[in-house]
Amino acid sequence: MPSPIRVTVWNEYRHEKENPKVAAVYPDGIHVALAGFLGNEADIEVRTATLDEAEYGLTESALDATDVLIWWGHKAHGDVADEIADRVAAHVHAGMGFIALHSAHYAKAFKRLMGSTCSLKWRDDGEKERIWNVRPSHPIAAGIPEHFELEQEEMYGEPFGIPEPDELIFISWFAGGEVFRSGATWQRSHGRVFYFRPGHETFPTYANPNIQRVIINAVRWAKPTVRLPDKAPRADALEPLAR
Amino acid sequence: MPSPIRVTVWNEYRHEKENPKVAAVYPDGIHVALAGFLGNEADIEVRTATLDEAEYGLTESALDATDVLIWWGHKAHGDVADEIADRVAAHVHAGMGFIALHSAHYAKAFKRLMGSTCSLKWRDDGEKERIWNVRPSHPIAAGIPEHFELEQEEMYGEPFGIPEPDELIFISWFAGGEVFRSGATWQRSHGRVFYFRPGHETFPTYANPNIQRVIINAVRWAKPTVRLPDKAPRADALEPLAR
Amino acid sequence: MPSPIRVTVWNEYRHEKENPKVAAVYPDGIHVALAGFLGNEADIEVRTATLDEAEYGLTESALDATDVLIWWGHKAHGDVADEIADRVAAHVHAGMGFIALHSAHYAKAFKRLMGSTCSLKWRDDGEKERIWNVRPSHPIAAGIPEHFELEQEEMYGEPFGIPEPDELIFISWFAGGEVFRSGATWQRSHGRVFYFRPGHETFPTYANPNIQRVIINAVRWAKPTVRLPDKAPRADALEPLAR
Amino acid sequence: MPSPIRVTVWNEYRHEKENPKVAAVYPDGIHVALAGFLGNEADIEVRTATLDEAEYGLTESALDATDVLIWWGHKAHGDVADEIADRVAAHVHAGMGFIALHSAHYAKAFKRLMGSTCSLKWRDDGEKERIWNVRPSHPIAAGIPEHFELEQEEMYGEPFGIPEPDELIFISWFAGGEVFRSGATWQRSHGRVFYFRPGHETFPTYANPNIQRVIINAVRWAKPTVRLPDKAPRADALEPLAR
Repeated sequence: MPSPIRVTVWNEYRHEKENPKVAAVYPDGIHVALAGFLGNEADIEVRTATLDEAEYGLTESALDATDVLIWWGHKAHGDVADEIADRVAAHVHAGMGFIALHSAHYAKAFKRLMGSTCSLKWRDDGEKERIWNVRPSHPIAAGIPEHFELEQEEMYGEPFGIPEPDELIFISWFAGGEVFRSGATWQRSHGRVFYFRPGHETFPTYANPNIQRVIINAVRWAKPTVRLPDKAPRADALEPLAR
Repeated sequence: MPSPIRVTVWNEYRHEKENPKVAAVYPDGIHVALAGFLGNEADIEVRTATLDEAEYGLTESALDATDVLIWWGHKAHGDVADEIADRVAAHVHAGMGFIALHSAHYAKAFKRLMGSTCSLKWRDDGEKERIWNVRPSHPIAAGIPEHFELEQEEMYGEPFGIPEPDELIFISWFAGGEVFRSGATWQRSHGRVFYFRPGHETFPTYANPNIQRVIINAVRWAKPTVRLPDKAPRADALEPLAR
Repeated sequence: MPSPIRVTVWNEYRHEKENPKVAAVYPDGIHVALAGFLGNEADIEVRTATLDEAEYGLTESALDATDVLIWWGHKAHGDVADEIADRVAAHVHAGMGFIALHSAHYAKAFKRLMGSTCSLKWRDDGEKERIWNVRPSHPIAAGIPEHFELEQEEMYGEPFGIPEPDELIFISWFAGGEVFRSGATWQRSHGRVFYFRPGHETFPTYANPNIQRVIINAVRWAKPTVRLPDKAPRADALEPLAR
Repeated sequence: MPSPIRVTVWNEYRHEKENPKVAAVYPDGIHVALAGFLGNEADIEVRTATLDEAEYGLTESALDATDVLIWWGHKAHGDVADEIADRVAAHVHAGMGFIALHSAHYAKAFKRLMGSTCSLKWRDDGEKERIWNVRPSHPIAAGIPEHFELEQEEMYGEPFGIPEPDELIFISWFAGGEVFRSGATWQRSHGRVFYFRPGHETFPTYANPNIQRVIINAVRWAKPTVRLPDKAPRADALEPLAR
C-alpha cells in the first residue's frame, strides 16, 4: 500500500473569529471543515495550519513534510510575509502540489506562481452559481456531473487575470449574468497548481458533496511525482568540443 | 502612418566596464549595440537605460512611455530592487511588451512573470549553437531560415525551469550534446513576453543578422494592443437576482 | 501600401433558399451579409463561394488565391466531399487562415483541423446571449467591450468537444443557464484557426457591430505570414557522423 | 485491486516479414517485442493486432475492450482503410488512450487526431540520439534520467508539423546536428494521446530499458478515466426563459 498523501490545509482563520455570520457556518474554521472530509479518505493524511501560528505553521520542515498544500485566505493576504510566500512557491517549484481556493486567487504565493494580476470582478449577493464541467475526463472532474448548482455564492466574474490555463476544467454561470473560469490547472517547475473558485466564507459551500469531491480529486492529482531541488549547474560537454 | 513603437533597451552594463574581453566586443555596452540596429527601423523609436542610472532609468513615467522593454542582465540581478522588478512586472500586466535576452532568464522581473525557477544548465566554452526554427509561421520567425548557426556561444541546457510556453519558436542544438528551448512566448495578463536565449557578453552574437531580425520581429510582436490598469471591481448584477 | 487580404466567404447557402424565415433575415444569403461589411474595409478584398458552385467554389486555384477562408455551414455538412474538406485543411496547413462560424463547428474541414468531436449542446429558443471578452489584449478582441449582448440567439452549451484552445478569447453566458467557449484559436501546421460561435441563421446576428468587429479583426489576425508546402525530406547531416 | 489496463499493441508487421535486417532485430515482430515487456507488468494485460488480420484486429468490440492502443506503422499507412482510422479516432474521442510510436507520426489515425501535417525531416544513417527529459515531473518521465542515449537511431528533425503540445516531455539531440520534439502529449475530446519518437525497425531500440520505462509509464498515464459516447443533444433550459 502506498504511503498516504500528506496534506496541509492552510487557513487565514480571521473571518471565523471576527464575524458571527461566518462563525455560524464554520464554527471551527474553514480549515477544520476542509480537513474533516479530507481526513475521511484512506489515502490522505491531513494537518492544518493558520496565520496566527509561528511562521504560520509553514516552516521549512512542515513544507518538506507536505505533499499538497491547500490555501484559503481573504482579508489578510498582506499579513503574509514575502519570505514565507516565497518559501511556499519554492516548495511548489520543487514538486509540492498547491490548491488555491476561492479568494486565494489573491494570495501572495498564488500570485507569485501565476506571474499575473489574478484580478477579477466580484459581487457578494449570494446568488445562484452553476458550475459546468468542461473537461469530464480530467482526474479532478472524476465523479462530477455535467453541471451542478450552488444556491448561494459570491460571484466572481471575467476577465480573470490568469495566464492561459494548461487545462480548463470548470466554468461557472452566475444568475447575475457573469461567467468565470472556476477550475484550472498550471504546472510551475515541478509542481502542480489548481485553482478552484467556490468557497465564500458566509455560505456552506464546503459541505457540498460535489465541492468535496473536486477537492479530494485535486489532492490526488496534485501529489508530487518528484521532489527536486532547484539548481543551475555548470555541465561538462557530453560530446567532444572542437578547439 | 501609425506612431512608432517606443522601445527601452535596458542593460545591466557592468561586464562591459569591468572585463576587457567584453569591452572588446561591446565597447559602448550591449544596450548600445541593441539600440543601434533597432533604431535603424523606421517604425521603432529606441532609448536605453542602465542599472547605474537613477531608478535604473525605469521610473513610472519612463515605463508609461515604453511599449516594449528589452532586458539584458547577468551578474547583478540581485542589485535590482524588488520594488522596481515589481513595477516592471506591473507594466507588463497592463500591456507593455517584455523581451528577456540570454542571462535575463534569471532577471527578477522575468522570474516574477514566469512564476517558476527559470533555472538551466550552462557551459561557457564558446561552442557551436544551431538554432532550429520550429514555428516558421510565427511573426517572430519571419525571414528566419529553417536553422542557422552561431559559431561560438555559451551553452544553455535543459531542463529549463519555465512554464510550458504558449508558443515554442526556437530550439537550440549545441555541439557539446545539449538542447534548449531558446525562443518562447507567454501572455501575462495583458502583456506579451518573449524569451530569446542567445547573446553571451563575450561573443558578437548581437551583430548576427538573424539574431537582429528575431529581436526586431519580437518588438513588433510584443507591441501592446491595450494598456489596461489592474482592477478588481465590485460589479452590479446584469440580470435581476431573486430575493 | 501592403496588398489587401484576400478573403473567401464560403456559405452552404441552403437555409436561405428553403426557409422563408431565414430568407427574411438574409435575403441574399449569409455570405453576402458577411462579404458586405468585410468589403467595406480598405485592406480586405472579398469574394464569396457556395456549396452549389462547381467544386463549391473551392478549386485549388481559388484557395491559392485566398488568404483567409470564412466558413458557414449547417444542414449540408455531409454534402461536402471528403476530398474538398481535405483540400481546405491542406491549404490551412500551408498557411491559409480559417474562420469557422457558428454551426461550422461541425464542418468537415473544421473537424479535420481540430481532431476531436466538436460536439456541443444546443437549444434554438432565441434566448439572450452575453459574450464576455476574457482576453481583451488579443488582436481579435480589439475594440470589443468587456461584454456585449445578443438579444436572441441559439444556445450552444458545454461541454464543447474541442482541444484545449491555444487562446480562449470569448465565453458566452446564456439566459437558460449554460456557458460556452465562444471564441478560441488554434494553430494547425502553418495556419491559424479561429472559431466564433454566434450567427444562427434565423437571427440578424451578423448585423451586430461587435460581431462584425470580431470577424474583421479575426481576418487580420488569421492572415498568413508564410505559405509553405508540406514536405518530409531526407536531410543530409549538418555535422560529421562517426562511421 | 483495480482491474488491469487492457492494452492492444498494433503493428503493421510488414518490414519484419520482408526485410531480413529487420527480422534479425525483431524476429517475431515489433508488436511481440512491445507486448513482451508490457506483459511483465502486473497491472497491464496485453494483446496484439496486425494489419493482415480481419479489420486489422481493430473491430468495434476489440476497441471497446482496449484501454490504451499502441500504434506502430511505417510503409503501409495507406493500406489502412479510412473507415478504420476513423473508428480508432472515435474510440480515442470517447476516452481510449493512444500511443503513437516512431513512424506512426504518419499513421492515418494519428494525423486525424492531430489535425496537422505531422511531417518532419529524416535520415536513416544510424547515428547517436540523446533524449533530454525536459519535464521530469511528468508521470511519463518517472524514473527516466535527465538524458539518455541511443547509439544508433534514425534521425527525425524539426520542423515537426504537430500542434503545440499540451505537454512537451522529451527533446532529442542528434549527432548530425538536428533536434526534435520526441515526446509530447495532447488531449483529444476525452482521450489522451502520446507521441514517442524512437523505435526504428532496424535498431533494437525497444530493448532499451529507458524506452521500455517510458512506454510503460505512458500506458498508465493514457488509461481512460471515462468512456463517453459522442452526442450533441438538444437541452432544455435550466432557467426560465423570457417569452
